[in-house]
Amino acid sequence: MKTKAIILNNYPKFTPSSKDVDCISIQLDNFPSETVLIRLLFLSVDPYMRNRLRPEGTHYIKPLEIGKPIISMGIGEVIESKTVKFKSGDLVIGMFPWQEFAVINANAAKPIRQTTLPITTQLGILGYPGLTAYIGINKIAKPLPGQTIFISSAAGAVGSLAGQLAKIHGCHVVGSTSSQEKINYLIDYYHYDTAFNYQQYREDYASAIKKYCPHGIDINFENVGGKLLEAVIECLNLQSTIVLCGAISQYNSQNPRQGPNNFHKLNSKNAKLIGYIVTDYDHLFDEFQQYIIDQYLKGKINYHETIINGLGNAWSAFIGLFDSKNIGKMLVKI
Amino acid sequence: MKTKAIILNNYPKFTPSSKDVDCISIQLDNFPSETVLIRLLFLSVDPYMRNRLRPEGTHYIKPLEIGKPIISMGIGEVIESKTVKFKSGDLVIGMFPWQEFAVINANAAKPIRQTTLPITTQLGILGYPGLTAYIGINKIAKPLPGQTIFISSAAGAVGSLAGQLAKIHGCHVVGSTSSQEKINYLIDYYHYDTAFNYQQYREDYASAIKKYCPHGIDINFENVGGKLLEAVIECLNLQSTIVLCGAISQYNSQNPRQGPNNFHKLNSKNAKLIGYIVTDYDHLFDEFQQYIIDQYLKGKINYHETIINGLGNAWSAFIGLFDSKNIGKMLVKI
Repeated sequence: MKTKAIILNNYPKFTPSSKDVDCISIQLDNFPSETVLIRLLFLSVDPYMRNRLRPEGTHYIKPLEIGKPIISMGIGEVIESKTVKFKSGDLVIGMFPWQEFAVINANAAKPIRQTTLPITTQLGILGYPGLTAYIGINKIAKPLPGQTIFISSAAGAVGSLAGQLAKIHGCHVVGSTSSQEKINYLIDYYHYDTAFNYQQYREDYASAIKKYCPHGIDINFENVGGKLLEAVIECLNLQSTIVLCGAISQYNSQNPRQGPNNFHKLNSKNAKLIGYIVTDYDHLFDEFQQYIIDQYLKGKINYHETIINGLGNAWSAFIGLFDSKNIGKMLVKI
Repeated sequence: MKTKAIILNNYPKFTPSSKDVDCISIQLDNFPSETVLIRLLFLSVDPYMRNRLRPEGTHYIKPLEIGKPIISMGIGEVIESKTVKFKSGDLVIGMFPWQEFAVINANAAKPIRQTTLPITTQLGILGYPGLTAYIGINKIAKPLPGQTIFISSAAGAVGSLAGQLAKIHGCHVVGSTSSQEKINYLIDYYHYDTAFNYQQYREDYASAIKKYCPHGIDINFENVGGKLLEAVIECLNLQSTIVLCGAISQYNSQNPRQGPNNFHKLNSKNAKLIGYIVTDYDHLFDEFQQYIIDQYLKGKINYHETIINGLGNAWSAFIGLFDSKNIGKMLVKI
């Protein structure tokens, strides 16, 4: 049996481009026991994937292999099963190759938990992006009512939920994003108190932050890095916390990248900076999903999906993450 | 009554120089009630003072005033008292002006606690440098036996104690310093397991750290910043902690200073970076002093003082901190 697949040609040097992958037809693997044949329904594209597109990978995840399919979180339907764990028609979730059909080890697939929310949310607010926001806010930042939290890349899959979680804690929630449309979304839909378009400040981000956070920043949920992080450090209050979730502004750079030149002020401001790898918190998945569902049912959490159609468009959906194309979770429907 | 005083002329732009101060004779202030006249015995010079030599100061301490005496921690003897709190002959400690004699508010002076150690240690291992090491190691890093700790500026007043405290916790203790003499001190006297001279590595500090920390760094007690901190980040293990105590390599720079360009790896290494201001921990002073004295009496802690003679040499003692002139605590004997 043959299937369409998105194959990695090379590691992009800077911003990923269409030349980095090919969409070709491949022969499906053997179909031994303890595997399932699945039809892919949805694929997730996420910024962290950029870190798998380097020969060195990172400390928590191996690089993707050149000549092999791209891999990401996805949802599939079991077509044929050679394990007692799954039967035809089951919906499964896992790290799946970018193919229309794939043979998957039974251990690499999990059954999808049925909830009141659509299954696509298992790749978004009920999946790793959601867990990332939940751990960062509820377990690491632990914000107090009245604190000012500043969230960069606020309208993305993680930032949009992080802001709502902070709002549930009673924070003053401020976001940065890339368009007026997204500002409106943040305020009207994601419960942010206020937000600004960083592109209007020509790298004088400190002015923007001072204007929108007149009492300074108590907590920074950081997704961007670079010059924006420098401005954040300028505006930190004493005893503040930076939750270092990501640094998307740096992902497409070669070394040397840009470190905040006012880094030493983390000392004189008595500040804490905490990095984390979300998969270290897998054991909290049930607690997390229940919390999100409860808050959703109370009307405290909204979500939005940007859905791109067709496996052939999956790579451009991924590239779009670095071009601010998404509001909320970016997904590919196969 | 007149006294000699060291007066600040200007804020140094880069490394402090002899032109920044004048040694002149000044008229002593009035001597109202609730003050004491003291004779200065010892003054402390410490790297943090560089941050008071900028018009903006820092978040935790005001700038020193141009045209006024330098101020630092010091020990004095009460010559005449206009308060019931002190009597002639008492030894007091506090933030004192760089003068041979000074009139001090009674509230700004504290009696010196008599211990089995000489009074000068109240400016060193039993004073703020000691508290800085104690808080950083015992309260923030909380190291576990077998962990590798890397301490930069290891032979200074803070680093030399921090290493010994980490050794008490059972760590593998590695330091960087600026000469073979200091390496010998670190290993023979301060209980470090090993140490290297960073000047021999021409900014390829990562090679040095990899050689001396073959299992990577679990805890970094950071005093230097700059390129050395970048090398530290490269060598951090997963779930590691940076205790950001200081950044002496950056103190004499104007903006823009140098941030670690691999900063984003704190995220993928699941690392924590914690800044702190030692004066926030004043309430732990008694507990801290008792701990240090106990460990000293057990032979677990050594200390060393580099003592410069004469008020007129105090400023060059301070400058010497940036030129690696001291082993252990740098003091000025008046």
